[in-house]
Amino acid sequence: MIQSRTLRVGYDKPTSVVCVVGTELNVDLNRSAPPNSKFFSVKCTSNVHYIIMPWRQRTSNRCPHLLIEGLILVISMSSASEEINESKVSISYYDENKKKLGDAVLHLTAVEISLDVDADRDGVVEKNNPNKGSWKWGPDGHGAILLVNCDCERTYWKRPDLEQRLISEASDIEDMSLMVLRTRGPAKLPEGYKLTMHISQGDGETIRVYRFIKEAKSDHDTEGLAEYPLFLDSAALSSEVPYSGGAAEMKFYVEGLKFLDKDFDGLITINLSLLEPISKDVPETPIFTDKVVFKVAPWIMTPNILQPEEVFVCSTSDNSTFLEQIKNFVQKSGCHLRICSNYVSRGDRWIQDEMEFGYIDSPHQQFPVVLDSPRDRGLVDFPLHELLGPDFGYVTRVAERKDVSSLDSFGNLDVSPPVIVNGKNYPLGRILLGVAFPTATGGRNMTKVVQDFLRAQKVQEPIALFTDWLLVGHVDEFMTFVPAPDRKGFRLLLASPDAAYKLFKGLQKDGHGQAKLFEGVEGQEPVTVDEVLSNDSLLTQNKYAQSCIDWNRDVLKRELGLVDWDIIDVPILFRPWEKAGQQPRAVAYYPDMVNMIVLGKNLGIPKPFGPKVNGRCALEAEMCSLLEGLGLSCTFIDDFTSYHQGWERCTVAPTSAGNGLTSNGGTWRCE
Amino acid sequence: MIQSRTLRVGYDKPTSVVCVVGTELNVDLNRSAPPNSKFFSVKCTSNVHYIIMPWRQRTSNRCPHLLIEGLILVISMSSASEEINESKVSISYYDENKKKLGDAVLHLTAVEISLDVDADRDGVVEKNNPNKGSWKWGPDGHGAILLVNCDCERTYWKRPDLEQRLISEASDIEDMSLMVLRTRGPAKLPEGYKLTMHISQGDGETIRVYRFIKEAKSDHDTEGLAEYPLFLDSAALSSEVPYSGGAAEMKFYVEGLKFLDKDFDGLITINLSLLEPISKDVPETPIFTDKVVFKVAPWIMTPNILQPEEVFVCSTSDNSTFLEQIKNFVQKSGCHLRICSNYVSRGDRWIQDEMEFGYIDSPHQQFPVVLDSPRDRGLVDFPLHELLGPDFGYVTRVAERKDVSSLDSFGNLDVSPPVIVNGKNYPLGRILLGVAFPTATGGRNMTKVVQDFLRAQKVQEPIALFTDWLLVGHVDEFMTFVPAPDRKGFRLLLASPDAAYKLFKGLQKDGHGQAKLFEGVEGQEPVTVDEVLSNDSLLTQNKYAQSCIDWNRDVLKRELGLVDWDIIDVPILFRPWEKAGQQPRAVAYYPDMVNMIVLGKNLGIPKPFGPKVNGRCALEAEMCSLLEGLGLSCTFIDDFTSYHQGWERCTVAPTSAGNGLTSNGGTWRCE
Repeated sequence: MIQSRTLRVGYDKPTSVVCVVGTELNVDLNRSAPPNSKFFSVKCTSNVHYIIMPWRQRTSNRCPHLLIEGLILVISMSSASEEINESKVSISYYDENKKKLGDAVLHLTAVEISLDVDADRDGVVEKNNPNKGSWKWGPDGHGAILLVNCDCERTYWKRPDLEQRLISEASDIEDMSLMVLRTRGPAKLPEGYKLTMHISQGDGETIRVYRFIKEAKSDHDTEGLAEYPLFLDSAALSSEVPYSGGAAEMKFYVEGLKFLDKDFDGLITINLSLLEPISKDVPETPIFTDKVVFKVAPWIMTPNILQPEEVFVCSTSDNSTFLEQIKNFVQKSGCHLRICSNYVSRGDRWIQDEMEFGYIDSPHQQFPVVLDSPRDRGLVDFPLHELLGPDFGYVTRVAERKDVSSLDSFGNLDVSPPVIVNGKNYPLGRILLGVAFPTATGGRNMTKVVQDFLRAQKVQEPIALFTDWLLVGHVDEFMTFVPAPDRKGFRLLLASPDAAYKLFKGLQKDGHGQAKLFEGVEGQEPVTVDEVLSNDSLLTQNKYAQSCIDWNRDVLKRELGLVDWDIIDVPILFRPWEKAGQQPRAVAYYPDMVNMIVLGKNLGIPKPFGPKVNGRCALEAEMCSLLEGLGLSCTFIDDFTSYHQGWERCTVAPTSAGNGLTSNGGTWRCE
Repeated sequence: MIQSRTLRVGYDKPTSVVCVVGTELNVDLNRSAPPNSKFFSVKCTSNVHYIIMPWRQRTSNRCPHLLIEGLILVISMSSASEEINESKVSISYYDENKKKLGDAVLHLTAVEISLDVDADRDGVVEKNNPNKGSWKWGPDGHGAILLVNCDCERTYWKRPDLEQRLISEASDIEDMSLMVLRTRGPAKLPEGYKLTMHISQGDGETIRVYRFIKEAKSDHDTEGLAEYPLFLDSAALSSEVPYSGGAAEMKFYVEGLKFLDKDFDGLITINLSLLEPISKDVPETPIFTDKVVFKVAPWIMTPNILQPEEVFVCSTSDNSTFLEQIKNFVQKSGCHLRICSNYVSRGDRWIQDEMEFGYIDSPHQQFPVVLDSPRDRGLVDFPLHELLGPDFGYVTRVAERKDVSSLDSFGNLDVSPPVIVNGKNYPLGRILLGVAFPTATGGRNMTKVVQDFLRAQKVQEPIALFTDWLLVGHVDEFMTFVPAPDRKGFRLLLASPDAAYKLFKGLQKDGHGQAKLFEGVEGQEPVTVDEVLSNDSLLTQNKYAQSCIDWNRDVLKRELGLVDWDIIDVPILFRPWEKAGQQPRAVAYYPDMVNMIVLGKNLGIPKPFGPKVNGRCALEAEMCSLLEGLGLSCTFIDDFTSYHQGWERCTVAPTSAGNGLTSNGGTWRCE
């Protein structure tokens, strides 16, 4: 929309004014007329255009025009002036005898001013995009994007860069959004005029603006010395912008400070105003304001079926066998393995629970960002100390200790592959997290600050699953995704006591009732198939587990748009874990095969130590038969003593940095 | 979307299950089959419907069907059962020789369950509206509406009703939204099944649910005794709902506790789940959940050109002349006058500044709601003590004292009449509030908590005007609206130093340079027209004032979709007010005529005490000539000593309760 400005012109002396190209000046023709004026005529130099509203034909023959009530002269200019007061408009007024009474004279200086951003998201800051002042989601959307500068250019004393009010390394500007002020006009602005950039108090909490200055030391120094002084922040919401004269471009870099959250929708506005002086004693008035809008990019999780680059695992005093097998498996899958020493992890082996990998993305930059869980056990410092670095960001949410439960570990946080649900496209999938049944009071939940953060990112709308029935209470205890060559490109794997009972009954029927689970496992009494099947309390517990999983199955089908053929039931049994004064909760009876690690087509599966038939574990055989048809390769890894046993939980602990950004980058704006 | 539930059926013993009418049960035909099954057939009683997915023709001739991998039996029921286990499905399995191996038998009890609200906004709670679980703005939108229960049924110890966790007066339920649970089924639910209503923790902070119970004392007592026990709130997020048997309706009343704000979009969800027992030792599982969505109604301001019902004014020790004139004027205009005594106001006469009138609206109820300013001078208790009452609500926002300035008085808060701006409809107008120039640092602003509150209401998207140039800093010092029979139905009146100078110059030219302003005003030295025109510092100040008003004029034109012909310039002069260490700011030079009170077509205008020409005040004459053509009647009221003078401000203080709800009610959903 064209900016119009009310202008008052006197007939007593000429008025000088600056006109911004692309805007209009409105002069009330009656208001500037000498008393008794009945007619008027308008003259102007080239480069000035005018119309008279309500619109009338400018026919020189009929001059002067009748001065009727309510006439507005609308003036505009098509290009910047080279000199101050270069252009001119005169309005001549006449009495009823067409005798001239006086002239209202306007001296005009035209300037071009455009504050520019990458509103069309092609990585280039185009000139004066008509959409630069608004923001719209989607592939046909528009609006510039801002990253939270949450990585750290330093490799020592590591804290996210946004905590510093300066740019210490030139590389830091790559994490910021370029903004360009383009001006064109005379060598100087008329006396007293100023340009100023300004933001609101609220936006001052969420961004900083740095200016780019390059000074050549000598005539031959084409490179110059770049400097990036802080220009706007919460302490300086407004700063004067020097005017350079001629055709000039001034660069600014905008830094995001705050992730989307319940109280922050990510939209921020930066304004550039031209101020006009009135007189010495009073403040200048803004006569033109250009504005640009940015939106802070959301934090996006990567699904487990994306090919990972790196696998993280802890080395502890008792997991050398496991570690050896993981090393071989990861090497075979072509990933890099990163081992966190016992010294660094302080004995905490549950690295998947401490953090979740995601990324932030914009047309100009993208990098992985780790979300640090408020779980905070031995690995509490690992994400900040070991992962944060150049182009590797960090974000966390602080919860009160009393609000943190096992459900805040990020084994309880996952994201689905891309899905389409009832025609609604989720190109980045949907987040899955575990909570208590909404019908139950007093259950454990993922803490509100983390849930609010995840929901506020918008692009991977979370689904709440019921996990409080499990002692540990993580979604990864009963579900995972594996890649598939057909259908939706993946299968959902669900733990299924029902499938396990069916398998065990089949074994019994085929004469293998005396085959033993846990054979050869140190410190674990073997159990026969017959014993498993005759254990009534185990059956009751597993019916309950199955009903809980089925509830989640129905939610997952509905919220991910899945049908039964997208789901594979994995034979898993649970057993009750009772603690005085607490309701009984479930833990896996044998190592929980669904809690696997997926490295492309290679699956690292907790070795179940099931009953052997003809020397082969029946559970492993079933697992292979369920998955190998999808082109997947199963590797069974012994985590019995190191993870499953004694810790009363059931997980393969390594987590994977699925930062395959190229395959996913750039699509989050398509909500 | 149809809710589907995964159901596991054994061939060893019959399964009993409750099926909610309108949902589907999915049975995996292979999973329930005995070993070696090759064929199957399905039989069911009437009232049960099934299909086999992937879909195949059920031709009895071809029975039994081949049992291939992945077949799902989808079962639904069309009406509620009268008895438990009234209906039945049997699946018979056969071996390759079509010899029967066993039957999987399912006993079914059908119930109808529908949690209902007024989703189509016609004042009636219809049954099972397909849109009850979502919310959409606009005339073609849908979704139930909730009021914040901010009035007070009591006339003593007045606090908003929402602060009580009980319904003390039956009339209180009229401020709440009716919600009905409709059920139909056998006399009792099968053993162990339960209905439960539940809300999230976040929603628990924003609503309460009361249950309606009517108990007849005797067979002849058709009225019964109504009770409304608290059913859900932040302390009880989940409660069991008794099941009544047969066709039953249970009423609930939902109370809103919190207005829309920066961190609250007003959407809340109430869930009703059917729980299925698994066994004695484990919690029940929800097998069906119905949900309804409400949105809290926004607080809506009423524009000043709406016919008011009541005018409020303070009686002070020195305003008896003013009060007498106001009485006559209000009586003439057919409004009720309410006088706040000096005892109640504690000497604070600025009643317009302490509060702003608005209303909340829903299909079932609407009432005025006063917004109490954080200004908090002598009138601090007036809104709560004197206005809050039955069907008169109260809301406020608490700001830190250090953040409160003169711009927080509600002379600085207005709303425009309905406008259409570039095709966008604002049927309730747009809020206008005054702030510092965005380019200036250190200026005064309306406090953030109030601005956030106003913005969060959404339906009257606020426009920020520049008022910090004024000492008092209120929008009503330079603008108001009056009704008009043509164009947009109103005119915007703007204070105009330019128009004042033009008028005074005309007087001088016509020989009235010695005519005096302020003649006969006690304690005020008269000034001649010549003296006004020769005062250079006054001229400078007024050029600045005009440029500030023009900036606002351009904003108002753009943001309200106005053209110059919608605006009337009112001749007002300002003078500088300097205070050591502060930048000079403006106050009205003579009583500020634009700060009038509009009672329909009657305008109560501060008497300007302008220069007299032929015995008539030239400013009054100009005002009449500008406004009488619109069918408006001007009454000039002397507020010189009581308001204009000595207080260094310029306002007619009475405010008006424009709660003409019938003309505006019900339109806020049309954003």
